[in-house]
Amino acid sequence: MTTPATRIIDEIPRELTEAHRDGFALPRPFYTSQAVYENDIKTYWNGSWIWVGHTSQIAEPGAFFLFDYGPESVIVVRDRENTIRAHLNVCRHRGSRVCVRRSGRATVFSCPYHAWTYELNGRLRAARAMGDGFDPADHGLFAVHVRVFHGLIFVCVSDDPPPLDAGFAKLAPLVEPFDLENLKIAHSETYPVPANWKLALENYMECYHCAPSHRDYSRSHSLKDPDEMSALAGPLLEKAAEVGLPSVALDETGRAAADIHYRRYPLFPGYKTGSRSGEPVAPLLGKLRDFDGGATDIQIGPLNNFLAYSDHVMGYRFIPRGVQQTDIQIVWMVKADAEEGRDYDKATLTWLWHVTSLDDERIIRHNQEGVNSHGFVPGPLSTMEWGIEAFYHGYKDLMTRG
Amino acid sequence: MTTPATRIIDEIPRELTEAHRDGFALPRPFYTSQAVYENDIKTYWNGSWIWVGHTSQIAEPGAFFLFDYGPESVIVVRDRENTIRAHLNVCRHRGSRVCVRRSGRATVFSCPYHAWTYELNGRLRAARAMGDGFDPADHGLFAVHVRVFHGLIFVCVSDDPPPLDAGFAKLAPLVEPFDLENLKIAHSETYPVPANWKLALENYMECYHCAPSHRDYSRSHSLKDPDEMSALAGPLLEKAAEVGLPSVALDETGRAAADIHYRRYPLFPGYKTGSRSGEPVAPLLGKLRDFDGGATDIQIGPLNNFLAYSDHVMGYRFIPRGVQQTDIQIVWMVKADAEEGRDYDKATLTWLWHVTSLDDERIIRHNQEGVNSHGFVPGPLSTMEWGIEAFYHGYKDLMTRG
Amino acid sequence: MTTPATRIIDEIPRELTEAHRDGFALPRPFYTSQAVYENDIKTYWNGSWIWVGHTSQIAEPGAFFLFDYGPESVIVVRDRENTIRAHLNVCRHRGSRVCVRRSGRATVFSCPYHAWTYELNGRLRAARAMGDGFDPADHGLFAVHVRVFHGLIFVCVSDDPPPLDAGFAKLAPLVEPFDLENLKIAHSETYPVPANWKLALENYMECYHCAPSHRDYSRSHSLKDPDEMSALAGPLLEKAAEVGLPSVALDETGRAAADIHYRRYPLFPGYKTGSRSGEPVAPLLGKLRDFDGGATDIQIGPLNNFLAYSDHVMGYRFIPRGVQQTDIQIVWMVKADAEEGRDYDKATLTWLWHVTSLDDERIIRHNQEGVNSHGFVPGPLSTMEWGIEAFYHGYKDLMTRG
Repeated sequence: MTTPATRIIDEIPRELTEAHRDGFALPRPFYTSQAVYENDIKTYWNGSWIWVGHTSQIAEPGAFFLFDYGPESVIVVRDRENTIRAHLNVCRHRGSRVCVRRSGRATVFSCPYHAWTYELNGRLRAARAMGDGFDPADHGLFAVHVRVFHGLIFVCVSDDPPPLDAGFAKLAPLVEPFDLENLKIAHSETYPVPANWKLALENYMECYHCAPSHRDYSRSHSLKDPDEMSALAGPLLEKAAEVGLPSVALDETGRAAADIHYRRYPLFPGYKTGSRSGEPVAPLLGKLRDFDGGATDIQIGPLNNFLAYSDHVMGYRFIPRGVQQTDIQIVWMVKADAEEGRDYDKATLTWLWHVTSLDDERIIRHNQEGVNSHGFVPGPLSTMEWGIEAFYHGYKDLMTRG
Repeated sequence: MTTPATRIIDEIPRELTEAHRDGFALPRPFYTSQAVYENDIKTYWNGSWIWVGHTSQIAEPGAFFLFDYGPESVIVVRDRENTIRAHLNVCRHRGSRVCVRRSGRATVFSCPYHAWTYELNGRLRAARAMGDGFDPADHGLFAVHVRVFHGLIFVCVSDDPPPLDAGFAKLAPLVEPFDLENLKIAHSETYPVPANWKLALENYMECYHCAPSHRDYSRSHSLKDPDEMSALAGPLLEKAAEVGLPSVALDETGRAAADIHYRRYPLFPGYKTGSRSGEPVAPLLGKLRDFDGGATDIQIGPLNNFLAYSDHVMGYRFIPRGVQQTDIQIVWMVKADAEEGRDYDKATLTWLWHVTSLDDERIIRHNQEGVNSHGFVPGPLSTMEWGIEAFYHGYKDLMTRG
Repeated sequence: MTTPATRIIDEIPRELTEAHRDGFALPRPFYTSQAVYENDIKTYWNGSWIWVGHTSQIAEPGAFFLFDYGPESVIVVRDRENTIRAHLNVCRHRGSRVCVRRSGRATVFSCPYHAWTYELNGRLRAARAMGDGFDPADHGLFAVHVRVFHGLIFVCVSDDPPPLDAGFAKLAPLVEPFDLENLKIAHSETYPVPANWKLALENYMECYHCAPSHRDYSRSHSLKDPDEMSALAGPLLEKAAEVGLPSVALDETGRAAADIHYRRYPLFPGYKTGSRSGEPVAPLLGKLRDFDGGATDIQIGPLNNFLAYSDHVMGYRFIPRGVQQTDIQIVWMVKADAEEGRDYDKATLTWLWHVTSLDDERIIRHNQEGVNSHGFVPGPLSTMEWGIEAFYHGYKDLMTRG
């Protein structure tokens, strides 16, 4: 249904995207307009793959968790046949949330309002007093697309999700040594930031800001300086090969077919992993034979970023909550059989990205404050901000398609 | 005056109402759009009769109380001639609230800003320094329509309020045994719910949700199950006639001329009234000779609902405060000469609808959360939700009239 | 860049201003519409001179303070050459706030995000990794117009600020005896009020409300009653001349060329200054030889109001924070060499306008509440509200210019 309200919204970005100049930041309304924000959710987020969790969170049939962004909520569940499924958490009757527990075990999903009851696979099992001519088969929960890649669960609400196969095929051999299926979530943390989700995502997509903004991160990660990174890249890739990691880089971000990025880059000498001391903070992952002193950036689609050290993997999400309210969600994952207290200490594991995220909250907030000015004119991107340009291309493609 | 802003607002519902499918829930924007909300207040609420209180609240000349909804505020006052009047609480000078006390006694209403002073009947008595050519007679408070029906006070801000006479004429003999003039307010309570007012009103308009959502209510009230209700209806109406209640049902909801609904329905055996134990919680009302084990639903216009047990009467209102903020207001009334402590206990009197309203707050909130999803598709109404359909008809009629 | 969003906004006031009737209050949307509010900031506030502070706040090179309104932030700084400058506080790269300290001393302004570094005069000194073809000279901070009049600092963000010279030339001899350059800020206070900035400004622009609303102010200030003021004016102007004050009134408010108002008016007998007791609260200002029992209203542009007693000067600002959120900012200034504790007591100095502002907060809030009603019809202005009419003229002129 096209209502006047949604029509107005749909028309804005098309004209706005034309106002954007290649190689520059986006114009103000992309970060300030309620209409653009609502369209972002409806078109961009609902049309993109979103990383929602790890299969270890729903190991048994009936196990489920909720994932939400903007006004959307998705039930991710392992059904009776052991298949991981996702459903829109909206009753087909009058639209109530069907599941209101954040996670747990269920045998059915029974709507708390009028008790319409759905199977784990989404089929409507029962609805009272619906009269003749009502077919439960037409009223199952709306299915949400779901893909599992090496234990990582992705969902897409759109009927027409972007292709993932080609990217996954290329990425699979590269990440295989990390044995991502055999991870568990050691800790999750949310950092709310009063800014548009694009500013939070852009912040993650470039390390131009690392040197001035992240003292602790920059002490250990060469990404903050392309020259230093180049100088250290050769030795790292040699060492990486020794410990069992392929030394191929892969970058298809911003291209239509796949939005995949993979790159192992060097930490500074003395750092085995992303930790305060440089010392390991958890057991070596998967088939790795030793610490090579590197870190791997993995991007799967524009919205999902991972950072694989030799002993832990981090997932990053930038969840829209309002036009200028975003949750930075950070997930720390370690080897599935690692045991807290014995094999890792949560505070030590999370220290680096906790302090780094507090920095980010501050600088993203100041970014939004400045962008809100009517006098803001988008400036030129630096040579270190190519990730942002790739994001803009993909964003504009999707928002003007059709 | 038609400003562009209001013009945009006026046009939305006309197209939206066409998008609504008979027998189904309303589309998302009716519950999410700020523009629709503002139009709801301006057109629907300001064009409807709203129950604001009972004559016992303003028994003496000069007694007044304020009633407010959305951005509106109405002064309800008994003037010097003992007439109950209502005025828009907006100064005719620069628009300040004229009366800022919630209730009390007054001899005049003097605006706190520049002291324009109005009589209880709304006439402007004095305004300093207004120059020549200013006629106080042209600047009285805007009159709000007011009707009193058996002690219940209704107001309508519109110049052209919907007709009430025919409905009142039919309803009068039916409610006469309750002696509604001789009530007093024993308690009022507000339950804020983060949802659009329509979702709160719809919740009251159907008992399809009672069985799954209201354990305590369903234990005593047969309304939750049409079959059980039918089975008990015959004996109840017999008993009702014995105690002095007419056994006629009246339903004109959703029709153009009158929006009146009256029906006595059975409580379950063992329940004399709507209480936890089933035992009386206050003295028998009016001319009733005994408890018949029934309860009477009374609806006067789409916005005003009453529930008359044999010993107390409840009033329900669903007051819009914002596009997704509503106050559920519940008023408990007992016989005027009942004395707290001696004839009724407030906690016992209010227990059932207090717990029921807490349930409602929760389920209405979850309803709004799900409706906010861009993926929400209005589903089919059950055979037990005819009250909602009637509301939709009346709503669409008013919103597309003209 | 003209986006659809901004285009829609630009069009609203033009039609609205036509709906306004001379001699009456403004229609509702001027106080309630988000679109009008955003246009107010972009067009009216950014196109007007705003009083931001006193030169004594930035006495040394490198000293700066921030001034903000709506979404705007301006850096006001004394540069190395001792020139007072103002810059838009928005990085020319991706728009971050450049300066996040409220005030202090700086040698450069280094953006906290990517460390683009600006000189005190706004020139971009350094930006890493910007590639070839990037010219720092093109990327200095946007300059904000700044004017200093007798120590009072004014800024205007627009490229085309309204003329000030003619007004300043006329005003200069009138204020000269107060020696405004030699003031210091004794105290500042912010009174947040949930109302549109225009309602707060209008409140300051008329004393029709003083008698009913401000008991303490009205006890001492004749402005509340034109007849009493006239009766006392002759003796005051004689006495004013004796103490060294010119006895000329100047009123060019609402005219295109200058928005200047100057008038000395009498306090009631027994009051030497605006204080609770009527006794002095600080040393005599500038070249004044004695207390004349008067007070001087000074208006410079529509947004900036000052009240000069014989021993202290007050500045008033009504800073928009949201469509219905405004900060009333009040600044108390005394002779530069006055010493707290010895020459003035802060509580005594600020008493009168503290209690008066608390009154104003309350009446402005009630004004907004009433104006929000859909039933609000702008009423006629009194003969004592000429200041408001002048403001409306200037406002409509600027908003429909083009």
